[in-house]
This record gives sequence, C-alpha cells and structure tokens, in this order.
Amino acid sequence: MTYTPVAYDPYDFANRRHIGPSPAEMEEMLKAVGAPTLEALIDETVPASIRQAAALDWAPLAEHELLAKMRDVAAKNRVMTSLIGQGYHGTVTPPAIQRNILENPAWYTAYTPYQPEIAQGRLEALLNFQTMVADLTGLPVANASLLDEATAAAEAMTMAERSAKSKARAFFVDANCHPQTIAVIRTRAEPLGIEIIEGQPEALDPERVFGAIFQYPGTHGHVRDFTDAIAALHAAKAVAVMATDLLALTMLKEPGAMGADIAIGSSQRFGVPMGYGGPHAAFMSCRDEMKRAMPGRIVGVSIDARGNKAYRLALQTREQHIRREKATSNVCTAQALLAVMAGFYAVFHGPKGLRAIAERVHFNTVRLAAALRAAGAEVAPEAFFDTITVKVGVGQAGILAAARHRGINLRKVGRDRVGISLDETTDADVIARVLDAFGIHDPAPGGDTIGLPEGLWRQSDYLTHPVFHMNRAESEMMRYMRRLSDRDLALDRAMIPLGSCTMKLNAAAEMMPITWPEFGSLHPFAPTDQAAGYAEVVADLSAKLCEITGYDAFSMQPNSGAQGEYAGLMTIHAYHKARGEAQRKVCLIPVSAHGTNPASAHMAGMEVVVVKSAPDGDIDLDDFRARAAAAGDRLAACMITYPSTHGVFEETVREVCRITHDHGGQVYLDGANMNALVGLVKPGEIGADVSHLNLHKTFAIPHGGGGPGMGPIGVRAHLAPHLPGHPETGGDGTVSAAPYGSASILLISWAYCLMMGGAGLTQATRVAILNANYIASRLKGAYPILFMGNRGRVAHECILDTRPFAAAGVTVDDIAKRLIDNGFHAPTMSWPVAGTLMVEPTESETKAEIDRFVTAMLAIRDEIAAVERAEIAAADSPLRHAPHTVEDLVADWDRAYSREQGCFPPASFRVDKYWPPVGRVDNVYGDRNLVCTCPPVEVWAQAAE
Amino acid sequence: MTYTPVAYDPYDFANRRHIGPSPAEMEEMLKAVGAPTLEALIDETVPASIRQAAALDWAPLAEHELLAKMRDVAAKNRVMTSLIGQGYHGTVTPPAIQRNILENPAWYTAYTPYQPEIAQGRLEALLNFQTMVADLTGLPVANASLLDEATAAAEAMTMAERSAKSKARAFFVDANCHPQTIAVIRTRAEPLGIEIIEGQPEALDPERVFGAIFQYPGTHGHVRDFTDAIAALHAAKAVAVMATDLLALTMLKEPGAMGADIAIGSSQRFGVPMGYGGPHAAFMSCRDEMKRAMPGRIVGVSIDARGNKAYRLALQTREQHIRREKATSNVCTAQALLAVMAGFYAVFHGPKGLRAIAERVHFNTVRLAAALRAAGAEVAPEAFFDTITVKVGVGQAGILAAARHRGINLRKVGRDRVGISLDETTDADVIARVLDAFGIHDPAPGGDTIGLPEGLWRQSDYLTHPVFHMNRAESEMMRYMRRLSDRDLALDRAMIPLGSCTMKLNAAAEMMPITWPEFGSLHPFAPTDQAAGYAEVVADLSAKLCEITGYDAFSMQPNSGAQGEYAGLMTIHAYHKARGEAQRKVCLIPVSAHGTNPASAHMAGMEVVVVKSAPDGDIDLDDFRARAAAAGDRLAACMITYPSTHGVFEETVREVCRITHDHGGQVYLDGANMNALVGLVKPGEIGADVSHLNLHKTFAIPHGGGGPGMGPIGVRAHLAPHLPGHPETGGDGTVSAAPYGSASILLISWAYCLMMGGAGLTQATRVAILNANYIASRLKGAYPILFMGNRGRVAHECILDTRPFAAAGVTVDDIAKRLIDNGFHAPTMSWPVAGTLMVEPTESETKAEIDRFVTAMLAIRDEIAAVERAEIAAADSPLRHAPHTVEDLVADWDRAYSREQGCFPPASFRVDKYWPPVGRVDNVYGDRNLVCTCPPVEVWAQAAE
Repeated sequence: MTYTPVAYDPYDFANRRHIGPSPAEMEEMLKAVGAPTLEALIDETVPASIRQAAALDWAPLAEHELLAKMRDVAAKNRVMTSLIGQGYHGTVTPPAIQRNILENPAWYTAYTPYQPEIAQGRLEALLNFQTMVADLTGLPVANASLLDEATAAAEAMTMAERSAKSKARAFFVDANCHPQTIAVIRTRAEPLGIEIIEGQPEALDPERVFGAIFQYPGTHGHVRDFTDAIAALHAAKAVAVMATDLLALTMLKEPGAMGADIAIGSSQRFGVPMGYGGPHAAFMSCRDEMKRAMPGRIVGVSIDARGNKAYRLALQTREQHIRREKATSNVCTAQALLAVMAGFYAVFHGPKGLRAIAERVHFNTVRLAAALRAAGAEVAPEAFFDTITVKVGVGQAGILAAARHRGINLRKVGRDRVGISLDETTDADVIARVLDAFGIHDPAPGGDTIGLPEGLWRQSDYLTHPVFHMNRAESEMMRYMRRLSDRDLALDRAMIPLGSCTMKLNAAAEMMPITWPEFGSLHPFAPTDQAAGYAEVVADLSAKLCEITGYDAFSMQPNSGAQGEYAGLMTIHAYHKARGEAQRKVCLIPVSAHGTNPASAHMAGMEVVVVKSAPDGDIDLDDFRARAAAAGDRLAACMITYPSTHGVFEETVREVCRITHDHGGQVYLDGANMNALVGLVKPGEIGADVSHLNLHKTFAIPHGGGGPGMGPIGVRAHLAPHLPGHPETGGDGTVSAAPYGSASILLISWAYCLMMGGAGLTQATRVAILNANYIASRLKGAYPILFMGNRGRVAHECILDTRPFAAAGVTVDDIAKRLIDNGFHAPTMSWPVAGTLMVEPTESETKAEIDRFVTAMLAIRDEIAAVERAEIAAADSPLRHAPHTVEDLVADWDRAYSREQGCFPPASFRVDKYWPPVGRVDNVYGDRNLVCTCPPVEVWAQAAE
Repeated sequence: MTYTPVAYDPYDFANRRHIGPSPAEMEEMLKAVGAPTLEALIDETVPASIRQAAALDWAPLAEHELLAKMRDVAAKNRVMTSLIGQGYHGTVTPPAIQRNILENPAWYTAYTPYQPEIAQGRLEALLNFQTMVADLTGLPVANASLLDEATAAAEAMTMAERSAKSKARAFFVDANCHPQTIAVIRTRAEPLGIEIIEGQPEALDPERVFGAIFQYPGTHGHVRDFTDAIAALHAAKAVAVMATDLLALTMLKEPGAMGADIAIGSSQRFGVPMGYGGPHAAFMSCRDEMKRAMPGRIVGVSIDARGNKAYRLALQTREQHIRREKATSNVCTAQALLAVMAGFYAVFHGPKGLRAIAERVHFNTVRLAAALRAAGAEVAPEAFFDTITVKVGVGQAGILAAARHRGINLRKVGRDRVGISLDETTDADVIARVLDAFGIHDPAPGGDTIGLPEGLWRQSDYLTHPVFHMNRAESEMMRYMRRLSDRDLALDRAMIPLGSCTMKLNAAAEMMPITWPEFGSLHPFAPTDQAAGYAEVVADLSAKLCEITGYDAFSMQPNSGAQGEYAGLMTIHAYHKARGEAQRKVCLIPVSAHGTNPASAHMAGMEVVVVKSAPDGDIDLDDFRARAAAAGDRLAACMITYPSTHGVFEETVREVCRITHDHGGQVYLDGANMNALVGLVKPGEIGADVSHLNLHKTFAIPHGGGGPGMGPIGVRAHLAPHLPGHPETGGDGTVSAAPYGSASILLISWAYCLMMGGAGLTQATRVAILNANYIASRLKGAYPILFMGNRGRVAHECILDTRPFAAAGVTVDDIAKRLIDNGFHAPTMSWPVAGTLMVEPTESETKAEIDRFVTAMLAIRDEIAAVERAEIAAADSPLRHAPHTVEDLVADWDRAYSREQGCFPPASFRVDKYWPPVGRVDNVYGDRNLVCTCPPVEVWAQAAE
C-alpha cells in the first residue's frame, strides 16, 4: 500500500485565510449564480476586450515567512534619536493605548461612523479628541481630524477664503511655517489663483490678503505673540490662522486668546509614533461663527428615539460632502484611529500630566540652551518652547555628523545652523550626547528659568471636562477603552457590506509590523541611509502596484483617495504645462462620478464638464464624444471610474480613453473599484494614464473607524516626471506633509501583496465578483437589482433598489437600521442612486456570513411586505422602531409586534447578539442644538438615569 | 512672577497606572476607615514586631524605559533554529491567534472558570482542546491541561497507582522517555515509595509493576507499536501510559488503538512559542473508566436554568480539589491560556491542515535521513516521525559546532551521536544548512517514501466535530474568538475580588515582551550562550525577590504555586537527609491551611500533623508547641501561611518559627498572601526558611483563565544547595520539565518589579491593605466581617459571613450569582470558612470600582432583607433567579419583581451592561450526564433554538 498525502496547504494565506468562501462553498455559490465555473462567471462579467494578457506572477509568502521578511526589512532601518522637529516628535505611546486601540481589531477594523447607533464608542472617543483640541487651542469648535498638518494648513487657507469678507486674493504665509506646510499651501494655492506672500510676520500687510497663517511656535522655535497682527488682519476683514502645537499650548497663551480665527496642527506627539511620516491626526478648530465653513467631519451630540444622549456626525448636510465642482476642499476622510489615540493620550495624562510633559520638554530645552550658551554658542531664539537653533558656521556638517555618530539626528538649517527639537522622550543621556557632539563634556548646571516671557504664559484652564479627570489607573483606562469598543460594530463581529468601501479582512499578520519600533520610530526627514528598510518597502510595493495596474511609476505621497485624485490631476496639469499646453483645463466627468471627482478637478484648477449617462447607467458615448470635441485643445482630462460607480464593466472604456487621447487629453481612472480589477484588468493597458489606488480599500489597510487611508497614484511613463515632489526629496507639487504620505501603513498593503502572491490577488478579485453575484442572485427576487449589465451580472458590488417601498412609507433608513437588529452594518445608502443600497461583500466574507446577510435582507423584505399589505403601519413596524435596544426590552412593551420579533430577527445571533447602545439617533435635533465638545456632566448624568 | 511647575510625574507607573486609588481617593478612603494616614493604618494592621528594617530601594522605570531595557535584554538572546526536539519544537503561531488571544486582555486577564455563567467562552475553547486531545490520542476523556509534559507523566504514574489492580510497587519507565520526564518521575516517585525501573520497552516485566510509561515517538525518534506490551501489562492488572506527540498522532496509530489507558504529552507545538521552556499546555487523556482518578480540571457540558446548553467544570467534587493529606496530586492549576491557543490552532487548521503539517515535517525528515544515508551516515531509527539520530563518533563536537555556525542547534546524544528533530518551521534552507554542517553540499534527491511501517499508519478519523470543520477564513476565526471572549467577564471589564487570588492589573507594558521572538523562540535546552538575556532576567529577578523576601536564593523551576510548595518541602527533605536526619518526616499544618499544603506534604513523603486553631482563627500556639514536642527529632517542617488564610497578621508568627527551629524543623511559609507583605515584612527575616511565591498573584502574571502560573521558591542559604536541579543544568530533585519553569512569563514579573521600583511595590502593599479595610468598613454594617484582628483591621482581604442568611433560605451561591447581574465576578466562596465570601480587591482597583462593588453588596443585602422580612420568598427572589439573561427579558415575565429590578440592579452598568450568555448552570445535571468533549451538533442546534 502506498501512503497518500493530503492535498492541502495550511499556509496558503490567500485561499485559507484571506478569501472567505471555501472551495466547497464556492461550488454551491456558483450553482446559485448559475455559472459552471468561476472562470466562466468572470468571462461573463469582465469583458474579454479589456482583460490583461499576462497573469500577475510573484509567489506568495506564508504568514510566518512574511513576518520573518518584515523583521529582516525592519533591521535595515536604523532607529536613531531624531531631534529634527519640523512637526514630528518622539513620543511615548502609552502601552495600554497601543495594545487596546492600535492593536485591537475592534477599533482598527471599524468604518466611518455614518451609522451612529453602532458607532457610539468611537464617536465618544472622537468627541474627546475634539474637546481636547478646542480646549487647548482656545477655540470652541474642532473637527474630528484632518490628514496632516500641511494639508490642514491648506484647508485653513481655503476656509479663510470662503469666510473672509476681504476681497483680496492673496494669502500670507509666515516664513516660520514648516517647509512642507509652505510647499503644500503653494501647491494648493496655484490652481485656485491664490497668490502666496511668504515672509516674516513683521512684513505682513493686512490689506493685501484675505488671510494669513502664522506658526506658533515657529519651525525654528520662535514663540511670538500674534495678538496685534491678528487684530490688524481683523481690521482688514481678513482671517487669521495659527499653525500650532498642542503640547506647547499647555504652557503657552492659546491662539483663541490671541484672537485667532482658525487653529491647525498635528496631534502626532500625543502618543502616535512618527512612522516615517504617518499616519497621524491633524487637527483644526475655529471660532463658532465659522463652523459651517470648516472642512472635515465634526462629531456632535444629539438624542436617540428615547431622548437619551447619542453621538453622531454633525452638520453632515454641510459636509455632504463635497460640493462637487464648486468645492475648494475634497476632504472626505480623517485620521480617526490616530485621533482616537491622541484623545486617549490626553485622557491618560489629563491636563496636569500634559502640562508636566510639556514642562519636562521645555526645561530640558532651557537646560540645553543654557549649556550651549555657557560654552559660547550662539543660540536662538530668546523665547522658545522645545526648539532652538544653534549657529555653527562652517562646522555644520561636522556637528551633524558628530551628532549622528552619537545616535542623534539634528536638523540642518540653512548652511550655518542646526536645529534641535526636544520631546517627551528626551532624557539626560540624550542631552549629554547632544552636548558631547558640540564638544561640551562638562556642561554648566542650568537653572530652571522658564524660557518664555510672562505675557505668553497660558492663563486659562483646559481639559476641565470630567473625562480628562478620570482616575488614570490602567485598570480604569483599559475598561473605559473596552466599554467604548464594545458599543461599536466592526469587522471583528460582522460583515460590513458597504458598496465602494471594500471592507475586506485586515489580517493580523499585516498589522503586526506597524507597531515595531523599527518602523514606528523613524522621523520622516531622517537621513535616507537610516531608512533603507522603508526604501525597500516603497520600491517593492511600487513595483508590484505597477505590475498590477500596468502603470510605470507610483507616488506614495497622497494620504487619501481624494488627495490621490487631486494629485493625479495636478500631475496631468503639470504635464500639459510642461508641453506648453497650460490652456488645457477642461475635465470631463460623468454625472455618476464620485462627488470627490469634480471637487478634485476644481481644486486642480480645472473646469468640470459633466457627461451624461445612458439609461443603463453607462457613460453616454455620444455626449462624451461631443463634449470632448467641444473642449478641443482645451481638453485636459476625463475622469472615469472603472468598473463604473454603478458596478458595471462598461464595454466602451477603451473608446472613452481613445476619444480623450485623440483630443490631447489624459485619462484619470478612479481606482475606487480596483478590487474588481486586480489581476484581471490593468488600467494602464486599457488606456488610462493615471489612477489613484485606495490602499485602505483594495489593499487591506483597515479603515480605522474613519481613517487612516492612503491614495498613492500610478502613472504612465510620460507623466512620471510630473509626480508630486517634496522639499525634503526635491521637486514641487507637494500634496502631503511627508514624502511617502503615511509611510508606516504602506507595510500593510505590502504585506497583503506579498502574502497573497499574484495568483492570490487575482483569485481575490474573482471571488469578490462571485460573492457580489451570489448576493444579487439570492436577493433579486426580493429587491430589484439595478445595473445588472447586459449579461445579468454585477461586478464586485450590487445595487438594491428600495424606492418601490416608498409607497408603503418604508425608507432606506428603516432598512439600514433594521439591519442593525440583525447584527449588520448597513450597505452604502442612497449612492450612487438615491433610495438604493449598494452592497459589496468583498472576497473575505464566507458563504455563511453572506447567507446570514441574505437571511436578514429577506426577513426585512417580509416585514416590508407586511406593511405593504397594510397588516401593520410603517410607523408601528419593527422597521421604524429599529434599531431595538435593551432599553426597549426592559421598558413596558406597547408595540404591535413581539419582543422576540423586534429584538431577534432571523439573522441576529442569539447568545452573541450585538446590542446597539442607543436607539435611532435624531439628526435634526443634533444639528439644531449643536454641541461638538464633551457635553457637561449634567447631560451625562441625565443620560445615565 | 516666577513660574510654578506642576508637581506630577506622568511616567510614575506605580502611582499613576498600577495602584488604583488616586491620592485624593485615598484620603477619602482613610476617612471611611478611620485612620489618619496610610502609614497609621499599616501600623495598626501589620505588627511592628515583624516589620522589615530596610525599605526596598531600587528605582522604578517608566513604561517606555522598561520597554527599551527589555529590547536591550532581548537582543542578548540569540534566536537560532533549534532542532533539539526533546519535547520542544518550533511552531508557527497563527498571527490571528497571537493577536486575538495571547495579546488580548479579554483572554489573558480572566480567572479560572469556577463561575461558569461568566466563563462560557473559555469553557468552550477548553472543550475544543479536550476534544482535540481525546480524538488525537484515541481516548475518550481528556482534561483541560496540565503544567508540562514531565509533570503530566508523573501525574500519570500516580494516577496509575490509584487505578491499577496490581499490587506491585514499581513503575516502569521507558528509557526512550525525555530525560526531563524521567527526572521528574524519579523525583515524584521517591517520597511516595515507588520504585522506578528504567529500561528499553523490551525489558519490561509486567508482573513487577503497577504501570509503565512508553514514549511514542521516543525521545530519539523511535516509533514502535506498543500493543503487545500494553496487553501484557493489562494481563498483569497494570496500567499503560503513553507519552506522545499530538502532531505525530495525525499520522500514527493512536494510543487508544494500542490499548493504552492514559496518554500524556505537550501541546506546545500546536502554535505555542517555546518561550525557553514555557508556558505550554500539557495534556492527559484516559479511558472512560478512569476519569474519576484523573487529576486536573475537566470541562463538561450541562444545562442552565432554562435548559439551554451550558459549559462548566465537571466532576469538581472529585477535584475539590486536593484530598489533603491523602493526596497523590496537588494539581490545582492548568495552562488554560495555552490550552486555548492549542485548541484554536486545531480549529484553525482542522484535521486536514494538521495532517498536512505533520506530513510536511515527516517528509522533510525522510528527505534529510535519505540524504544523510546516501552520504554514508549511520542514521537511526528505521521507523520515525520527525526525529533521527546520526552516529558521528568523535566528530560530535565538530558537527554540533558546524551546525551552530550555520545558525542551527542540534541535540547532543551520548558521546558519539547527534539528534535532529524537524518541525513545522523547517524549510529547505534549514535542511540544506544541516546537511552543509555534515559536509553534504549536493544531496541526492530524496523520495517521498513514508518513514513509518504500514501497521503504524493511523486508520481512524479525528477532529470530526463541526468546530474543526468551520470555514477557516481569518474573518470567521477572528469573529469566533471575539464571540467567545465576549461571553466572559474578565479584568478588562470589572474587578475580580477573589480572596487569595490577587487579581491585580496585568499591565500592557508587562505583557508586550513575551510575544517578541527573541524571548518566544528560544528552546529551553539551547546552549546557554544563546540565552544571555534570559540569564539576566533570571538573575535580576532572583536578586529582587531575595531582597523582597529576605531569602538568599531562588529557584524559578516550579511551574505553579502548588508545585512550589512541593518543591520547597522536597528541598527541606533533601536538607534533612544531607544532615543524616532523613527520619524527619513530620509536617505540622494548621487546620486552616490551603488544601494544597497537606497534599504537597504528602507528596513530599511527609506525615501531616494538623494543628488546631484558636477561636479567633489564629494558630493554637499551645497545640502547636505540643505537636512539635511530640514530633521531636521527627519534626521535618511546619507549613504556615502569612498573613493567615483568614487574612490576619498573627502576632505569634515568630514564636511559631522559633518552636519549629527549636525542634530541628524548617519553616515553610506559604507565599499565597505575599501581596500583604511585600516591602513591609520579609519572610526570611521573621524566621521562615522557604516560601513559594505565586508570581501569578503578587507579581502580576495574568491568570490566563486558569493558568499559566509560576511558583518559584526562595530559601535561606542553608537550603540553597538543595534546590531543584535539572538534567540539563545538573543536580537532581527536578520538579518541572524546564530548568526555569515557564521562563517566558518571568518577564512579566520582572517588568512589574522594574517599573514599580522598591517604593512602588511597598506602596502597592499598603494600598492593598487600605482597599481591603475600606471594603470592610463600608460593608461591616451589612455583613458580619470575620477575623478582624484585635485592632479591628483586616489584612489585604476580608471575609464576609453569609451564614446568617441561611435561615431565610438565601445561599452564598445566590449572592455570588446576583453579583453577576451587577457586573461582577464573585469573591472566593466558602473558603477558608464555609458559607463565607472572601473579598480581595488588590491595590489595582480604584475607589470608584470598589464603591461600585460595595453598592452591589449593599443592594444584595437589601434584597436579602426583603426575604428575611418575608416580603418575597427566597425561591422567587431575584437572588435565586440570578444571573438574569437576555432570554429572561425577552420571555414572558412572570416574576415577583420587575424586569428593571432583575436586570439592572444598582451597580450594573446601563449602556455597557455585561449579559451572561446562560442562566444559572445546573451542576448536578452535568455530573450525572457527563460529556466532556464537544457535544454533537444536535445539542448545539437545540441550544440555539
């Protein structure tokens, strides 16, 4: 007898771990779908004319092989002590926050809190963040974070433009801003026709500008009182922005007290590792009068159906979201996970702890400055918080090298100075090594005189809310974090079938390396020889993304999908300009496009021309042809999404590209739906010139409850010279604060590509399409499915029409909330078509979970039918009372249906049921009574009653 | 104006993070207690006569300093590929298991599942483990894990002795057992008077023995069929034990099929890192007839008050726990966390995946053996699974060195052979390096012939239960782990006020290093120069424990508290023996002692003499004096607990020690209550000679849901030469499989000591005493408090008397279950006095959490009063119906109290309420209908209905 080994690879990450359905399940699903094989289904779905010729062909790594490789790559980075400053500082991440937030799927796999009933935990955490920002900056309204300090500054500029009564067209930029901030402001200003005037604050002429930004403390350490400058701006009806530092503000007079209208900055040093550039949460706060002009998300307080306190995203009509072609902002993501961390850092330390940390940093800087001065060095400025600049003349290179030799990076400033920024992690040993690098071996003992004039000492209280005065024992903190996470429904408990958002698995092995110090502790402007590991990551990930997309080059700089769009269009613009065709400004955009498309085009200085849709949802080719011809040599680009936002592989895509090229335009292909293409179709092969990829969708970066994201752009070779540059690496067109955006999370996408291998990625695409078609085939009897394509197939998502139920009074909201009772996050609502639900299961969901979702949707359909048959009024139905809470169960029951039916619809788990902490949230009440900092205790107490 | 810095150290781990009450809270608590200062309270509580002279005096580290130091120490370990085998193998921990179990406080901070209603998650996980062990070994009953393979073997020996009908007094040990297994068996056998006969299996004379243990596969790789040997043993009414390997059993004929009665082994290679020796879960399974003789915990299936399926610990009356002085086992802990991991590893891979892993290992070994043989090497054995032995003659040292030079540790076997054990992580590169070390650079391509005779191929199925056939996508696995953890109540949600168990904070910073590969990947028998980091940990932790206890030396070998007791007594025995006083066998033990004390004494061959208690619970000094005198030169030791198990600092402790010493005895001081002593009292100073420390109590190792634990012993200098030895490090008296026990979790206790500093540890003790006295003072009006001491103070725990409520029909169980409704784990029940609750808050709990507990206890007292006043019958009261579940809420409500009162008693959280997944569990039903593997699906389905 011969022994027969089993045919099974337990280390096959793609097919064992990442892709949901097992081979046996796929067989059953194909039967339901009516396709003989997976390949046949794909052939029916994805037109042969666009399929890529060669398969993706790199071999996969097992999880343990990946981690071993990551350790090797990590070892190529050299972690030194970076005292470079410039917006990035060493920080101590409290281990309990690292473990319970950053490394906890309950937090990192959550989606943006658009469904507030299942997001109360992270909404509270973000409200803490907002309260912290508002308090520290002394401005009453703060948003829930922005991408990075530099883009926040640019957003503040356009917000100032929107708000200022001054008719001036220029914006003043303090030369003491960080170089990357100035670079991003300049990039953003140019296409909007805003003139940038850069100079020392003294040079400001308020009459010439609609606004100004000052950095406080300045990039080289200066701490100035801007009260007079701001008053002058106000007299000229201009808006004053301050770029500032939260830690410094615990000691320094706050921007609000100086009269500032807007404050922005980074909360990175509140416990978020530098990560070679990110991700971190930028912040923005403003005066109350300006809040409706503020970009980004704002968490607010409202009430639920029982009148209990409930959090939600406020002012969404303002945000909602991007005013298309009139937009001056395309911000539609935040850095939620990092804002949550920074908020918890403040909760962990409280106002006293933060002040103590600031004083530690400041007095260390005072001591260092004193020692340097005592040794005869010329140290500036006189008033500083944590940063000083030392004049070293021709010895600059020598000093920098001596410091590096001692494990320390200092900042090169001009040709004769070095900058030193201390931080929370700076201890006596670091200071001794710095002094040693200056040849000072026996420093004079420095006093503890404060290095700030009394007029700049902070006089007001901050973080007075009880949440910042909790007992700070780790047991208490851990339990608070656990309670908040338990209130939320994330991928660690259920499928999140959000169309276009691609909520796939974020595997543990992919997440592990990002918290290793070799990746987390690198300053983005550290010498490149210390970042060889990161260089390898960027190079290899770029190569793989090129192979996947058919492009020739990638820029990792854009920090979000929308920013990728903008960067891609700017690249096109730069290309045209370089060819002497700067007049090309027309951008054709189908009416069905993502709202960010026209917004990005506007921001890139383009003129949006909308192209009609045919009745089947496809681009109206005749209209497209006509508009392109009309634009003629003014045609800059078209922006298309593929498969379309309707989830259809339009057969005409090559023709659209050809027409665009014929008229000298460039094709921007929005990569939002790349999850339907990887391994099957290469955008670069079908005629597109540039795309952004949402790494937080297709490439497994978790959504983090509303960020981080990454939107790198790929381009064909002719566009490569025009990709975004950066002050640190050369070139212009900077779009993000750091050269490689949020570099540390590139590791996640790289790990995903490495473990999947080329074949695994391709199979993932196939199964994503199978899963969507399976849902469509299971639900098509109950819900009309829109845009099935001419072969009755959908791509990787499907759109369910709920408009037929309007007659019975059942809304899409009712269905969404009833899904919560079934233990699900709702699909994407009313996009791309109002009154619909767009469902995207992704390849990571198993048949069992999809079946549970189908069960829920069919049961809901039955409940709708009961309303349609007038057996129960919509207003009395479980649909309208959804979601049901424990409060409903405990209270007297006066409903037209049973407790059992209300609380345990068929797809709900029984023992493991998820209970939303609040009932349906009242949006109108919240916007009418806007509260966007932590509510006073009475409200808490009331809610607790 | 001068600037006034805040007086606050945000990095003070002891006072900011570990110790619960803030300074302001402590003030309030002292008021309630009626003590002017904390020091005054301590003076009233801890007798001056025993206080230590010098304060503990090492400086604390901040969390980030600790982690930096840990990284330095980690770098001193050198991670090589260890092919040493001998019971420890490289393994791949699935990252999702590492992240969601091992690094998740919901799992690691849980207590032993004695309260089944709040432990259904880990009970299910442990049932999976038992099912896996039972299936793979082919024996129907498995326990929920034991400490390590060697102690499991020793337990099997005594279990065989208990079960065998043979009257023989010898036990046969296969010489192919691992050396450490043989060593531990010998240690255990000697005091019990069991003769050990060691030899090759062929030499076994069944008539001479009550049992035998065979290793399968043998330590040098041999795979033999023991069917005939077992039949011969059975004919002689002797018991057959097989030490085996779970991975091998996926390919090999199982012990049950050979007729074995008991199987034991280690589940380490099922995804649990080697950790330089542990912790890992050993397993034991047996024939059904023997189950009542099995040591350790067994999870069983029962029903709850509604008849739904519910898990619980079965046969606790059997276990309960330790039959004091008649015991032949003192096992009262397990390796729950590691058993959970191993069980999940099997769920992750399923039978096919496990078989594929085994085949990968086996065929790699076949190829290696073939290549070696082809090159002329003499390779044994003929039939093997993963281990071969190569005869190398005088070249042994050279081969070992050559392998080490290539990053590989081989096993030194005798003087002329080397052993090679492959594992899951072995890849082609490792094999090539091994061959290279043998000078084979171009190996002949090996075939894939199986290296096992057909008669030894496994014929039966295993892991047929659906849980091992779940879809293995990570999303599904992650959600399963989350669901299970959500069913349980652990320290991450609430205080666990278990008296004597010291459920204090397990800080994130303490836990982080244990999953670093530099600590996790070391083989316990790796050359010591590769483990310099561990050596530093052991040395420094020993030094600090010596300073804390006043002892002169420590052994880290004992793997649990009970094992520490045993090891300590064995050390005393060895000391007496070395002095020619082997006749000293009497051990005096107070009647109030932990049940493990007499059990350990019996196992150490001592004769237990029980000493009476005085009415106040203290040791009856007259009786003690009389018993000591009676023992005379036969007095070996006394075993005392300090403070006593009643939580009292007995003033007479020095006298007890003096009397013992006067009669030539040694004092064993049980360290269970060390949390009341650290920094205040040194056992070594008040007269004790030896103690074990429960590192999983006082020194912050998490309980892991019922293990791991560590019980190192400290001794005064005269006993140091007699501490446990080990085959690998020299000396005898081996008590654990590895020289330093579960070495990797020593990191946790070391981190705790380093971050607390001497002063912090001392303050923790003080606050532990404050917290207990605060509870006593808050509750003394409602519940009688026992053993308040002559100054009306308790130590670090307090005993509430519930016997007065018996008249009204309210039981201690009712109170415990009603605490669940309030969101709490019950205190220790009916120990040390039946009908009482022993409450230990530890220093880590805040005033707010303690107040919440007090609120719960007072509300329960009110509910009892209502019963006492006959306003409601006990049987109808919320006390008896506790714990309340969602099922109660959904069902028709026919109770004598409201839903509100039943489900939301005063201390319960409202929004964040913990709902037990089952109602009160029926213990009798479970023991009467014993099921201790996963129940068939019908039961699952039924329970789901």
